[in-house]
Amino acid sequence: MDRLIFDSEHILFRDTVRHFMLTNVAPHAERWRRDGMVDRAVYRQAGEAGLLCLWAQADVGGAGIADLRFDQIIIEENIRHGETGFYIHLHSNLVAPYIDRLGSPTLRARLMPGIVAGDTILAIAMTEPGGGSDLRAVQTRAIRDGDGWRLSGTKTYISNGILSDAIVVVARCRDLPGEPIGLFLVERDMAGLSRGKPLKKMGLASQDTAEIMLDDVHVPADNLLGDPTAGFGTLMRFLGTERLIAAIASIAAAQVALDLTLDFVRHRRAFGQAIGQFQHNRFRLAALRAQIDAVQAMVDQLVLRANAGSLEGGDAASAKLLASEVESQMVDLGVQLHGGAGYMDEYRISRLYTDARISRIFAGSNEIMLEIIARGMDLDTRS
Amino acid sequence: MDRLIFDSEHILFRDTVRHFMLTNVAPHAERWRRDGMVDRAVYRQAGEAGLLCLWAQADVGGAGIADLRFDQIIIEENIRHGETGFYIHLHSNLVAPYIDRLGSPTLRARLMPGIVAGDTILAIAMTEPGGGSDLRAVQTRAIRDGDGWRLSGTKTYISNGILSDAIVVVARCRDLPGEPIGLFLVERDMAGLSRGKPLKKMGLASQDTAEIMLDDVHVPADNLLGDPTAGFGTLMRFLGTERLIAAIASIAAAQVALDLTLDFVRHRRAFGQAIGQFQHNRFRLAALRAQIDAVQAMVDQLVLRANAGSLEGGDAASAKLLASEVESQMVDLGVQLHGGAGYMDEYRISRLYTDARISRIFAGSNEIMLEIIARGMDLDTRS
Amino acid sequence: MDRLIFDSEHILFRDTVRHFMLTNVAPHAERWRRDGMVDRAVYRQAGEAGLLCLWAQADVGGAGIADLRFDQIIIEENIRHGETGFYIHLHSNLVAPYIDRLGSPTLRARLMPGIVAGDTILAIAMTEPGGGSDLRAVQTRAIRDGDGWRLSGTKTYISNGILSDAIVVVARCRDLPGEPIGLFLVERDMAGLSRGKPLKKMGLASQDTAEIMLDDVHVPADNLLGDPTAGFGTLMRFLGTERLIAAIASIAAAQVALDLTLDFVRHRRAFGQAIGQFQHNRFRLAALRAQIDAVQAMVDQLVLRANAGSLEGGDAASAKLLASEVESQMVDLGVQLHGGAGYMDEYRISRLYTDARISRIFAGSNEIMLEIIARGMDLDTRS
Amino acid sequence: MDRLIFDSEHILFRDTVRHFMLTNVAPHAERWRRDGMVDRAVYRQAGEAGLLCLWAQADVGGAGIADLRFDQIIIEENIRHGETGFYIHLHSNLVAPYIDRLGSPTLRARLMPGIVAGDTILAIAMTEPGGGSDLRAVQTRAIRDGDGWRLSGTKTYISNGILSDAIVVVARCRDLPGEPIGLFLVERDMAGLSRGKPLKKMGLASQDTAEIMLDDVHVPADNLLGDPTAGFGTLMRFLGTERLIAAIASIAAAQVALDLTLDFVRHRRAFGQAIGQFQHNRFRLAALRAQIDAVQAMVDQLVLRANAGSLEGGDAASAKLLASEVESQMVDLGVQLHGGAGYMDEYRISRLYTDARISRIFAGSNEIMLEIIARGMDLDTRS
Repeated sequence: MDRLIFDSEHILFRDTVRHFMLTNVAPHAERWRRDGMVDRAVYRQAGEAGLLCLWAQADVGGAGIADLRFDQIIIEENIRHGETGFYIHLHSNLVAPYIDRLGSPTLRARLMPGIVAGDTILAIAMTEPGGGSDLRAVQTRAIRDGDGWRLSGTKTYISNGILSDAIVVVARCRDLPGEPIGLFLVERDMAGLSRGKPLKKMGLASQDTAEIMLDDVHVPADNLLGDPTAGFGTLMRFLGTERLIAAIASIAAAQVALDLTLDFVRHRRAFGQAIGQFQHNRFRLAALRAQIDAVQAMVDQLVLRANAGSLEGGDAASAKLLASEVESQMVDLGVQLHGGAGYMDEYRISRLYTDARISRIFAGSNEIMLEIIARGMDLDTRS
Repeated sequence: MDRLIFDSEHILFRDTVRHFMLTNVAPHAERWRRDGMVDRAVYRQAGEAGLLCLWAQADVGGAGIADLRFDQIIIEENIRHGETGFYIHLHSNLVAPYIDRLGSPTLRARLMPGIVAGDTILAIAMTEPGGGSDLRAVQTRAIRDGDGWRLSGTKTYISNGILSDAIVVVARCRDLPGEPIGLFLVERDMAGLSRGKPLKKMGLASQDTAEIMLDDVHVPADNLLGDPTAGFGTLMRFLGTERLIAAIASIAAAQVALDLTLDFVRHRRAFGQAIGQFQHNRFRLAALRAQIDAVQAMVDQLVLRANAGSLEGGDAASAKLLASEVESQMVDLGVQLHGGAGYMDEYRISRLYTDARISRIFAGSNEIMLEIIARGMDLDTRS
Repeated sequence: MDRLIFDSEHILFRDTVRHFMLTNVAPHAERWRRDGMVDRAVYRQAGEAGLLCLWAQADVGGAGIADLRFDQIIIEENIRHGETGFYIHLHSNLVAPYIDRLGSPTLRARLMPGIVAGDTILAIAMTEPGGGSDLRAVQTRAIRDGDGWRLSGTKTYISNGILSDAIVVVARCRDLPGEPIGLFLVERDMAGLSRGKPLKKMGLASQDTAEIMLDDVHVPADNLLGDPTAGFGTLMRFLGTERLIAAIASIAAAQVALDLTLDFVRHRRAFGQAIGQFQHNRFRLAALRAQIDAVQAMVDQLVLRANAGSLEGGDAASAKLLASEVESQMVDLGVQLHGGAGYMDEYRISRLYTDARISRIFAGSNEIMLEIIARGMDLDTRS
Repeated sequence: MDRLIFDSEHILFRDTVRHFMLTNVAPHAERWRRDGMVDRAVYRQAGEAGLLCLWAQADVGGAGIADLRFDQIIIEENIRHGETGFYIHLHSNLVAPYIDRLGSPTLRARLMPGIVAGDTILAIAMTEPGGGSDLRAVQTRAIRDGDGWRLSGTKTYISNGILSDAIVVVARCRDLPGEPIGLFLVERDMAGLSRGKPLKKMGLASQDTAEIMLDDVHVPADNLLGDPTAGFGTLMRFLGTERLIAAIASIAAAQVALDLTLDFVRHRRAFGQAIGQFQHNRFRLAALRAQIDAVQAMVDQLVLRANAGSLEGGDAASAKLLASEVESQMVDLGVQLHGGAGYMDEYRISRLYTDARISRIFAGSNEIMLEIIARGMDLDTRS
């Protein structure tokens, strides 16, 4: 199904991004996967190419483009021609907005230029060992320490865990009434911050997922993001966009998996014909073609909503749920139709498969998505 | 998910249609189901209210509104507040266009005013006993007979089979080279036309599905629709819109089933709480809420495409496939959550369930839809 | 997959039963469906043929055969060659045991001979309007009334609701501490018992499902079944076998649906070949063939367990869950492959489809089955 | 569901095997995964413990136990307490029988003692680059060479590709009429045999999957297994047992995945309760509990059939299909319920997930299983 939301400027921009990915990302991807992380340099190159934080204002070096379609294009091209471990939208869309919108003017002025330039790489630390999707169970604590705060605790499954220079840390403010959740910016050289080794994962080989340990880290008052007494609500507000971003990425991965599977089944032969000619295979591919198109139609509509400032949390949750489900189904079918080859690392479908398995878990597990959608259906209050 | 394709004029029109359905259709629905067919009068009332063939030109009494959103609204309101057996879109959208666009000027001038007024009720006769979705297997034959044609054969599963005054009959032209498929308009009083008793069906109780028998029916030359040597291709061309219409109806039925199930589970209690509060039920409803929204987003986009004249057959097939699948899943869940009540005729979910079972079969079975989608994926030609 | 649990005596018995069904049941089935109930006579004929309550002892006219395989054969042959509305296992296996095992010696001696002979037709009344699978919500009340009890309340969805001569009624004993659930045998001519009209249902046309109203019905002490203070536990104990019986019936229906679908697709042609030759159809049938075989293997093993007195409630729940799921899938595929014919009453697959929809709801909904299975997995007590 | 096929001798044997796995396999598993292959020593230890080729006759050092339940126990305990990369059943059950049953007496006498002792490790080479499940497309060729044969070609995805001392190679006999498939035993030190590096795979880290290259390898006449003119049929005959073995392994993996997931969800908490207490999680686990039980019941029945010599190919295909499907579903749910932890290598569920993905592909892809089952349904010959 043709996509209708893009204008000529988006189409031109897509060419630029594709060229960037083919030039600066794809040629290094295999080495990055072996290394377990990308080169820091690629963030700086992306910054130079103007691909980081497009939405940021001119005063911090940004382009001030408040049109999520451009971000969508970057995500799509990175998945198609780049490398999923280059987690550019984590940096630009999932973490930087906390600093830009919740940080003090001085913090923003100090850090955003480096973030937009790609000198300062970002991460966010929510999950804790033993935790999961439940923010209410956060154990990391922040205690008043003079003007500032003292943070202690352990966070895990942090993407960019090794590379990151600035980390948004979710912590419980133990001195405040009700012990609310606060967001704190922890920086690379703060005493007491240490990092574990990259965690060995099923997929996402080039992404440096790690544990970070906070041992009485002093965080200055200016590194508090937003009002701690409103931390949880704030977090929730940002999560809507995060989920749409996750949906954009998942459906993009599904499209890539479909395309490369189609290419494979057109050429691989068995029992005297191309395996893409077997009716069972054709029909399964057709069924997924239809589903991918429907979810893409929904995602694209929600991108327009986000641009209009009217994205609803329940709709973003629906998109994240469906996009990650259809991504899972597509990569599974892709592996199946590749046969033994689909199990081998050298075929990209194999890596798309293991990469995809996190999509139903992160950015709020799909069970959380169902909960959010259900809340919008007014099922709890009647009897 | 809010729908964005409707303007204020559509919203006003929806009110009008709803009022019509609540006034002229709903109060008679139960009787019609007992009778096995609707009253002829309701077509005339719909004609008076301007609800038939909105697209028809002024010269035959139509409003000339080439905006499928209005037709979509009629279908949606009929399913929500009217009665599925009142097969208004079969008349207006699926059959009348053959006469209007393929018929000769004299045929069009003679019949279209009655069709728009609701005096002449329409049907289309494609399927034959022993046949199915395969138009190539048509056995009904048309032989030259003077200026006109002589038709013989049996057609089955004809909706409006009893009520119809004019029937588009698909027949094989035995005298022409290659024996192509032709479309012929058979009228109520033609000698040799007879009808079977209404067929007893699983659902759609108020719809008069019947067999028709053509025993050497003489059809004048003017009742040939289009060029018989192009009949099959013509049929195919109309089928794209038909499938989008089917998708519109299916997703509308899914929406109604979801709404009335939500209403039921909010109030029905078990084990000390409303059954809509059980997590398993909430999550299943949430998952379907998301899927319905995605398919509705796709259908609505394709309605705009149809308005723009750029509806593609593969996309229409995808919409029909997905809408009928999600309709099936939703009515199934609806029955399940109604428990024993869901099995009883007096609960509408029970009728929505049996009505829905035809959706994956008619208008081209879903297997045909998969075939059409697959054809668009270029799987056949390579090796 | 060949079934291995049957000996030569079972095979001979199957022939007898098949002959009975073909002679006494099948020829009347269509009329019964029109009438909305079976003839009383068929119960008496079944009694004469020795097919009712095989397990009953000789002193009440039974054969004393405590081998569930014979009951299984009756159920299977009734579904294959008889008529589902002739609810012989409701009578023999689901209701009679309450009277035989929980009734007083005098009650048993008075009623069981007529039950075994087919003179006294049975029903059980659990569900209430507004209730469902939740026995704890029972509102029908039993109050002490001299030696006996006085029952008031309304029960609904009673199979054999019109034909039944004796009805096991579940009621709350309002005078006893804790208001426990008791089982009471209400007989045809007791004052205050009245019945509604047969309820119109989606399927099971020949089964007289009805509401019964109890308006201060005096029930003598001797018609109390078992100890009211243990009523709920007793009910639960019987439910294991009931669920296995339900599983036997569901998987039998699935087998019949598969067989008649295979027969249809071997002969119906489309696009130049038998539709059973299309790979997509073949594979879907093969997938269901495998699933039916697996569930049948499980059911057959549990029948042996039941014979050995070691049937576990969780396993019976698993069998009921899976058998009804695979039945649903099989009848759905059957209808789909029949195409338009599958929607017509005259094709048996259509009736199997609507009959099957109750299987996931009755005998404890499948959600209750999941609950029972989950309880066996020790998920509730840890933290 | 309790399993009933095991006698006391099997239960004792299971203890022995478990002890072996815990002592000789489990402690080395992590190192083996890093090394990409197991130690040769473990085969010798298994031989000493009498765990290899139990079915082999006494004259070659075997125990002559023709009871597949013992093999089943070895597979189950290896999956539960050992390491999937120790592919003991490939050696004992999938390859050795070709040599024992099809080899000449001298070949059998020369090699079987070392195979039973674990000195000679086995592999089988069927798949070729560009091939797949289609044996008819085999390109590796065998040409007469004096008394013996000369083999050339490339095979890929060979399990035990590096460790193996003797490899059954499937090759096309180019000199024989019809160029039939023959089976040839290629030994470690034959000139012209070379091996690629271990292939990097999605899972099965400790299994040395590799390519082997045959460059004019001279194979003596005695190393021809069976009659080349019957090679394909022979292969087919052995495949029935292979598929049952695959089913045994898959359902065993599903059981392990269920157990460790249950353990996880009993203890991991979120939103104030153990996550195993959430109804949605409980129900999904219950549904899989039921399915695993049904497939296990089927597999166990087929093991008895195999013992009786009456295993049918279609049934073995059904078991392989269903067991691998339910394994896939179970490991997927297991990962999901583990949340982020499920994506990390250190949690076994993560490895079970990636290991499982090959189950629907190898030993004949599940599409081949569907084809085999379909063939048994007599769908091809009618019209």
